[in-house]
Formats: sequence, C-alpha cells, structure tokens
Amino acid sequence: MKSIPDLLPEHLRATLGQRVDLIDTPALVIDLDAMERNIQRMAEFAHKHQVRWRPHAKLHKSSEIALRLERAGARGHCVQKVSEAEALAAGGVVNLYISNQVLGATKLLRAARLAAQLAARGGRLAVAVDSDEGVARLAEAMRVAGSDAGINVFVEIDVGQGRCGVAPGPAALALAQTVATQPRLQFAGLQAYHGGAQHLRTAVDRRQAIARAVQAVADTRALIESAGLPVPLVTGSGTGTLVHEAASGVYGELQPGSFLFMDADYSRNERESAQPQFEHALFVKTQVISVREGSHAVCDAGHKSHAIDSGMPLVWGLPPELALRYANGGDEHGILYHAGPQSRLPALGRMLWLVPGHCDPTVNLHDHLIGVRGGLLNGVVERIIRVDARGALT
Amino acid sequence: MKSIPDLLPEHLRATLGQRVDLIDTPALVIDLDAMERNIQRMAEFAHKHQVRWRPHAKLHKSSEIALRLERAGARGHCVQKVSEAEALAAGGVVNLYISNQVLGATKLLRAARLAAQLAARGGRLAVAVDSDEGVARLAEAMRVAGSDAGINVFVEIDVGQGRCGVAPGPAALALAQTVATQPRLQFAGLQAYHGGAQHLRTAVDRRQAIARAVQAVADTRALIESAGLPVPLVTGSGTGTLVHEAASGVYGELQPGSFLFMDADYSRNERESAQPQFEHALFVKTQVISVREGSHAVCDAGHKSHAIDSGMPLVWGLPPELALRYANGGDEHGILYHAGPQSRLPALGRMLWLVPGHCDPTVNLHDHLIGVRGGLLNGVVERIIRVDARGALT
Repeated sequence: MKSIPDLLPEHLRATLGQRVDLIDTPALVIDLDAMERNIQRMAEFAHKHQVRWRPHAKLHKSSEIALRLERAGARGHCVQKVSEAEALAAGGVVNLYISNQVLGATKLLRAARLAAQLAARGGRLAVAVDSDEGVARLAEAMRVAGSDAGINVFVEIDVGQGRCGVAPGPAALALAQTVATQPRLQFAGLQAYHGGAQHLRTAVDRRQAIARAVQAVADTRALIESAGLPVPLVTGSGTGTLVHEAASGVYGELQPGSFLFMDADYSRNERESAQPQFEHALFVKTQVISVREGSHAVCDAGHKSHAIDSGMPLVWGLPPELALRYANGGDEHGILYHAGPQSRLPALGRMLWLVPGHCDPTVNLHDHLIGVRGGLLNGVVERIIRVDARGALT
Repeated sequence: MKSIPDLLPEHLRATLGQRVDLIDTPALVIDLDAMERNIQRMAEFAHKHQVRWRPHAKLHKSSEIALRLERAGARGHCVQKVSEAEALAAGGVVNLYISNQVLGATKLLRAARLAAQLAARGGRLAVAVDSDEGVARLAEAMRVAGSDAGINVFVEIDVGQGRCGVAPGPAALALAQTVATQPRLQFAGLQAYHGGAQHLRTAVDRRQAIARAVQAVADTRALIESAGLPVPLVTGSGTGTLVHEAASGVYGELQPGSFLFMDADYSRNERESAQPQFEHALFVKTQVISVREGSHAVCDAGHKSHAIDSGMPLVWGLPPELALRYANGGDEHGILYHAGPQSRLPALGRMLWLVPGHCDPTVNLHDHLIGVRGGLLNGVVERIIRVDARGALT
C-alpha cells in the first residue's frame, strides 16, 4: 500500500531553493536571518554579563540548532525529558542537562547509560533532583549501569514557580548533602527557575519576583557552603527575566529558550531597556480557504498547527489598515476578523503569516522546520531542519 | 551516531503483553474494551435510526482504527486534510471524504490523483466546497490529473458554526449548480456541520441549535431539488448532537468522531437520554515526579502530552475522598491539588490516569496509541496502534 507514488511526506511541502511563496500550508517556517540575529544578541548579552548560557532545547528539539548555538558560545543544552536528551545525543550533542525530575525506573536506567555514553565522547550529562527518593533511584540506576563516569546533579529549589523543587534553605542543604554522599553523583549546584515570572506583564513585577528568587538562592547557597559543601553553579532563568538573573551576581548560567524564536506571548510583555531586542523568527505560513464577505475569513492553520495554551497567534506583516485578528476556529481552522479601520478581508487563496502564541509546543507539532533565507516576502528555502525530539515525552 | 544501542524509540515505552502498570510515562493508552463498546453503541444507534455513519478520522488518524470501524458498519471516513486522506489510503482505507475546503494548488492536484487511485481500488474520494473559486480550482486539478473516475463534491453550508460554508438558500443552490456543470465533479449533496453546538452545555440549547440547522438544511435541499437538481445526501453532525440529526429525517449520514474515545470536555455536557452511553476510552498514563507535602504534587504529563484547548484533563479512577484536580503546569508538567475531603496527596512515583480535555489534538501529539485489554488496573498491552496521520497538516 506504500507504493502510492504521490503519497508525499509532509516535509516535501518545501524543497531547497524553493521560493517562500510556494511553500505548501500550513508550514512552520524559521526566518533564519532573524534567528541568527537573536543568537548573536544572546551571545553578546551573556558575554557582557560574564555568565554561561545553556539554552533550553525543549523549545527547538533539534540537534542541528543545538550545534549552531554551541558554535555561537552556548555551553551545552537543557532538556526536560530523557528521550529529548537521547534524541539530541543521536544528533551529536554531548553536553546535556535534564533540568527536570526523573522518577521512572526505565527512564533512570536510560539516563545512566546515556551519562556513560556522553562521557565517553567527552561530554557530560546532568540531571535535577528534588527528593531523597529521586536521589536514591538515580544512584541505584547509576550503580546498575556500572559506569564510573558519573553524572552531575543539581538540587532544584522552588523560587516562586510552585511546581517542582524543594523549599530554599535547610531542605535544600539536606538534599545537597544526600547527593554528595553518593559515589557516582556529583553535586553540581542549584537549579532555580522561576517559570511563573517569565510572563508577568510589567517590568516591575518581573523585577520584584526575580529579586525574591535571587535572595532565596543566595541564602540557600550560603547555607550549603557554610556547611562545607561548595556550590559550583546556580542555573536557571528564562527569556522573560534574564536581565535580572544575569545582573544578580548569583546565577552563573542562564537557560533561556524562547529568545531564539520569540512567540506572541513574549511580545505582550512590557520590554525592559536592558533586554536584547529579540525578534520574532518562527512563523506559521497559512492560506485563506474560505471568505464570508462582510463577516470573516478562514485560514487552514488551527491548533493542530500551533499551540494556543498561551493565547492566539498574531497575524503578521499586514499594514495597520488591513490588520486581522485571529480567533480560534478549532483543530484545523483559524477565523480571521478585520481589526483595522478598513473592513477588508483577505482574498480567497491568499497566503498569510502567523506568529504562534507559544513556540515550544508549536515546534513539537511539526517534524521539520523550514528555514528561509532572505525574509518572508522574497526569501528562499535554505534548510529543512529536523525536529529530532518531536514527540519525545518519556 | 544512530548506533547508541539503548536509544529507545518512543513506541518502545510499551511492548505487547506488558502489564499496564509497567507502561512508561507519559503514554497515550486506549482501553480497548471501552472503545469497542463505544463502537458497538454507535453502530446500534445508526442502525436504529437508519442513518449512515462516516466517522471523523481527524480524531484517531489511524488506518487500523478506520478499518475496525468499517467492520462495525461505518461507511467510509471523514478527514480534514488531503494528507490525512493520503495517510489513511496508504493503510488500506478506500472511502474517504475531505469534509473541508481545499484551495492550494499542490493539495488539489494530490487530491485529484488520490481520487483516481481510490476509484481504481473500488473506493471513492469526496471533498467539500464553499466557493466558485474552489470549484474551479478543483475542476482544473481533476482535468490536469486526467482521470475520468471523478470525485464526489458536497456543498458546505453554514448552519450556525460561523466558519466555512456558504449561507443556506440561494447561495447554496448557485454553488450546487456550478458543481453540476463540471464534468469530473459529481454533486453529492450538502455538508452541514454545526461544530459550535456540540459543546453547548445544556440539552435544550443543543436541541434548539440543531433544530435551526435542520430547518436551514431542509429549506436549502428543497430549493435545490425544486430547481431540478437531486440532493443525494445531507451529511454532518457530531458526538454532542447526533441524537438530533439522526432523528431529523433530513440528515442521511452522521460524522461523529469523539464517541470513540469521549474526552473530558464532552463529559461536561448535560446528557440526553436518547444518547448512547459512550465511555471514556482514551487516557494519558502519568507518574508523580514531585510532591510538596501540604501543598501539591507534580506529574510528568503537561500539554505536550495532551491538548488543553478545551480545558484541563480529569484525574481518573480515584476514590472520591482522594480526588485530585489537575492544573496547568506547562509543557511537561501537571500540578495536582487535592480536591476531596481528605487532604492526601499521591505518593512520589505513583502512576495516575488522566482523561484528556480534548481527544483529537491529544492523539495528534503521539505516534502510537497503546491498546490495553482487561482494564486500566490489571490489563495488558494487546495492540500498539500507529497514528498514521499524526502531524498531517497539508
């Protein structure tokens, strides 16, 4: 049955050298020029503040992009899942940090084996813990795997997110000491990410939230070090707050992901002058497939094409008088209402560009990212980038 | 780099015969017994009302499930995308209806070729239209493809959804006549789906919405037939309203999809006595990876594991006194608060079951559905079902 000659794989919706206007829809497209400017700005920012950056690959899930970030100065990559680490390792990435809790026995054994493999290639695996049980299970998996290469372990503390992590202070000290007693685990420092602060809309709210986080981290670090245990690194932060962690003198490493693509939700934040001018670099190309004159138009990108957990996408690049508002039309449709002073709807068949509400889960819906050089109006397809860890959940 | 021996493909999180408690998490699991009861109930319902059923494969995206539905009496399958039709055709499905607007030139040419291939296998392709431009483009694609087998064409009318479709009445008549003039297009009837009515919470609201839709369809059909053009079939409906379309005497075919799995959002509808007792049959298995005593627990399934566009998942199968409420914890986490009279959180490492808020986009996040026989407590893995059209967007 697979012999149908024109059963086109999805990635053939674009071919190298193709003009951007001929890419079939819906498609997830990277403006490579904009992405490279974002990488350059991040590298300059980290250099200026003398902090390391370990960008979060949960965003792009691509070994090609990970290696590109390393060439710009990134020191390894964060992931959230063992299977994401495996997928990036298969693509040649050797410094990986699972910045999350891993409890499942199968997953821990896989992580232990991956740690040995990465070490054999000159790299390193790290993982976060927030419980004695988690430490014991990880230590047992490392023992079973039988490697002496070891694994770096960060103690996760909750600095305001209200998700994983032990409380700052004595609980973190106790857990760090537990880690330090385990022969194959190297206590590597503190994981302290405040996810909830990234999308606080005003600059002052974000500043205050991170000031509290920084205080908690500094106190906890001092407590652990006063007990005789060095804290090699504090790692955390994201695109929304990185100006504050970078300036804190406490965080030694930043974990932003979204700076690479910049979704619509981040553009709703009040910008801080110290923040690099990151640009939108990820777009969904879509086509108008139905027009009801005087009412609305419908495009072929619904929430199977882009994630809507952080709000609807923006319709990009239209002159203000022809602005459109995207409303949820279900899994396969977007409904477009005119939002400018002129009540003109786009023509049937017209191609439009959307900026997704949230980049990370949008990328996870696609097998490939179509890299365009020369802009969305006149560019051509330069790269088709595989999303290696698409669907990597375990 | 691909030689890493333990780089486990995601689908190996479960193996045939494995006990359900050993399936790695997060995983999308079908309770096969419940699904088969849902299929049986739907078949009996359609038989009783003497209507055809063409279930919507946008839900399951699987040729294996499509063929299983056919064995129970389904007459072909709806899809929303040309690439979904191609993926199911590659798995042996030959009667397919793209119940959506297709405007792109590449997609139309693929549809035209697929129409010829399905006809050669004794099947048939159908598509919906809602514009003269859409009809002209489809006719041109059929001419270029050069097949004489033809394609069935439904005129889509908007019966309250406010999305695609022409207005009922004269606009529908004019479009039907345009279709009828085209040599390779066979006017097959009316597409009349009221998506917005499916999730109206009260039975009376749904009944009234569909009563208006039925009137619009009946009037439009009478108008077209009075102009001398037979209307072979009216097709539409969904799981939330099928009792009304089935009893209408106007709809000859039902297109429900969700009855197969029944998501959390449908369970929030007031049930009508005439509706079959469909059960939840699709679950996300997840593990507790972090516990903050006195506050909350965290599980390893976030909205990269299940769609949250229609609300949060339900935590399934717990006794009422230990009930948990799932709150959004981001892409990779769910936050669990106790919701029963006892303030007991689940233990670290505990396995839990979630009923997704919306099944269709949840299935689209996974490459495989793990089919379990014998229930979620003591069952074993019987089938690993490929989601053939996962990510099929064009």
